[in-house]
Amino acid sequence: MHANTLNFSAGPGALPATVLAQTRDAIVALPETGVSVLGMSHRSEWFLDILDEAERNIRSLLGLSDRYAVTFLQGGSSLLFATVPMNFATPAFAPPEYVISGYWSARASAEAGRVGEHRIAWDGQRTGFRELPALGQLDVDPRTAYLHYVSNETIEGLQFAAPVAAPGVPLIADMSSDFLSKPLAAERFSMIYAHAQKNLGPAGVTVALIDRELLERIPGGMPHILDFRTQVAHGSNYNTPPVFAIYVLTLITRWLRDDIGGLAAMQRINEAKAARLYDVLEEMGDVVTIHAKQPWRSRMNVAFTFGDARLDRAFLDAAKARGMSGLEGHRSLRGLRASLYNAVTPDAVEALCETLTEFALQHA
Amino acid sequence: MHANTLNFSAGPGALPATVLAQTRDAIVALPETGVSVLGMSHRSEWFLDILDEAERNIRSLLGLSDRYAVTFLQGGSSLLFATVPMNFATPAFAPPEYVISGYWSARASAEAGRVGEHRIAWDGQRTGFRELPALGQLDVDPRTAYLHYVSNETIEGLQFAAPVAAPGVPLIADMSSDFLSKPLAAERFSMIYAHAQKNLGPAGVTVALIDRELLERIPGGMPHILDFRTQVAHGSNYNTPPVFAIYVLTLITRWLRDDIGGLAAMQRINEAKAARLYDVLEEMGDVVTIHAKQPWRSRMNVAFTFGDARLDRAFLDAAKARGMSGLEGHRSLRGLRASLYNAVTPDAVEALCETLTEFALQHA
Repeated sequence: MHANTLNFSAGPGALPATVLAQTRDAIVALPETGVSVLGMSHRSEWFLDILDEAERNIRSLLGLSDRYAVTFLQGGSSLLFATVPMNFATPAFAPPEYVISGYWSARASAEAGRVGEHRIAWDGQRTGFRELPALGQLDVDPRTAYLHYVSNETIEGLQFAAPVAAPGVPLIADMSSDFLSKPLAAERFSMIYAHAQKNLGPAGVTVALIDRELLERIPGGMPHILDFRTQVAHGSNYNTPPVFAIYVLTLITRWLRDDIGGLAAMQRINEAKAARLYDVLEEMGDVVTIHAKQPWRSRMNVAFTFGDARLDRAFLDAAKARGMSGLEGHRSLRGLRASLYNAVTPDAVEALCETLTEFALQHA
Repeated sequence: MHANTLNFSAGPGALPATVLAQTRDAIVALPETGVSVLGMSHRSEWFLDILDEAERNIRSLLGLSDRYAVTFLQGGSSLLFATVPMNFATPAFAPPEYVISGYWSARASAEAGRVGEHRIAWDGQRTGFRELPALGQLDVDPRTAYLHYVSNETIEGLQFAAPVAAPGVPLIADMSSDFLSKPLAAERFSMIYAHAQKNLGPAGVTVALIDRELLERIPGGMPHILDFRTQVAHGSNYNTPPVFAIYVLTLITRWLRDDIGGLAAMQRINEAKAARLYDVLEEMGDVVTIHAKQPWRSRMNVAFTFGDARLDRAFLDAAKARGMSGLEGHRSLRGLRASLYNAVTPDAVEALCETLTEFALQHA
């Protein structure tokens, strides 16, 4: 298998081989224009068509109505961690509430704290970020500006199986690491955002779906570029957007629709991949520890360890010898991590499982 | 000539053919890692080396000392228009002052006005943005937080030949459209910023050089992602940077050093290209009007018109028939515009000049 197929990086990560082939050709000449994708003006008809198609494909994959604006932003989730409260934590409402379920939601919450007052709706820190709150376990002020959570924690390998239930409260989720990995009841949210470098394409673009009603709450006087209404009003073309990243994202949405067959089909593949890997790890018994507890285990990121930095290092070497990459755990948790994003194939997961089994037999 | 060579777009614009060829190959497999550049983690050693090299090459091309931090940001100049005053227009100083010399500096000034108090040091609007202030003509409060200007106005085709003189006042310039097109006395500035999609690479990354002394003026408590110290402290890797755009930018700096021979050589080429095009336009007499007045004409963007929307349209058609693209004027000024960024070759300019001359003979 090619090294790109055996890329288990947590992001930027693997992209489908057919998308890479199309992208490679587009660097020299786009089929539609004969000009390099890197030299295309963001005001060209070609790019306006790409913006249109990216939005249309996302709407159609999700079944998203026009009640929502779809917009493409820069700066990643980290910029959104600041701009979400700047736009929506207005004095007309009670402070926004944050679920802290891991490293990334903790960062979102900390940034909100720098923008203004906020409340912690749930905090998994004391229990080591190994579980998630049960739906309905959250005690949220019904007057809150919004409830924010991260749908999948890449570092700890935790994932909400369904949207958090908070009736009557605007729900905002960072779905950077599981957006478009499965069908989604998107209209239960007031806002969803996701950067590209997991399931959507290369780093440099962030998709945001925003209920148009929520946009009306944004206070006036903010710098235009930080006000979500600006890119919505300008069709994501207020200033030069990241043309290349949006182009690759569009190719990915075509691949999801045409090659995979939509999000339900994608989910079946992703569930099977994750089940296979967790089964293999479980069968190893005490030899390996999976960080996340049973019902909250992520289908996207599997964080585990052989319980010893030397053994983990030895496994990385064994995997590298088979052409695998990206299996190091995050610097905050260490250990090992396999990311199983959309573009990671069942065959690649099978190869990883074989390597794990052989390694366990030799070293345990 | 290939369509990429005949791309006169104002940005995203032409890139060197050798850089496109390397980038195309890197989409499938980087020579250093065998993995797609789009699948490389931003924490990988490969990418840390690229970040280092990008910074080192920029320092060496400019002769920039360690007094300056070099950092890579997202969001383009439009985000900087807001974050520069957020970081530096602190109450300890008099309001920042802005030179308004065209469309882009007017936008920078308007955004500063949304962040706080600011003053207009010079305004070329009344005279139709056809000229620039003479050095020393600016009446700047010596206690100002900073003086801001745009070194090259892409739409009107105006360019400052040398840094604005404002002794004792921190000078901040948006050099998005002429950065690395010629040698630069960078250390006369307190901050320089430039997005990539003109001379540096694809859209999606913005380079900032900041005097470390100025960084100490930044107030505490801002969202981390908007505070310039964050990316400086994290080596431009606080959150996922636009890996691909920074990679291509690095290839461009190698090309400038190895293929072109540095910024003085680049300047000679750029001066010759601009002189040739202006000469041809001047020789046409009344048939054509160049927007900018003589001493302020840009070497990067030449805005002109045949004086009639139908004739301009006819010229675009003639140019398109020869494989040329990107010659439409900006929607705010209309007419025509040829952008002569670093990657536009003398041969391409020659082909444009021939087309102009033939067109003028036929239609004037």
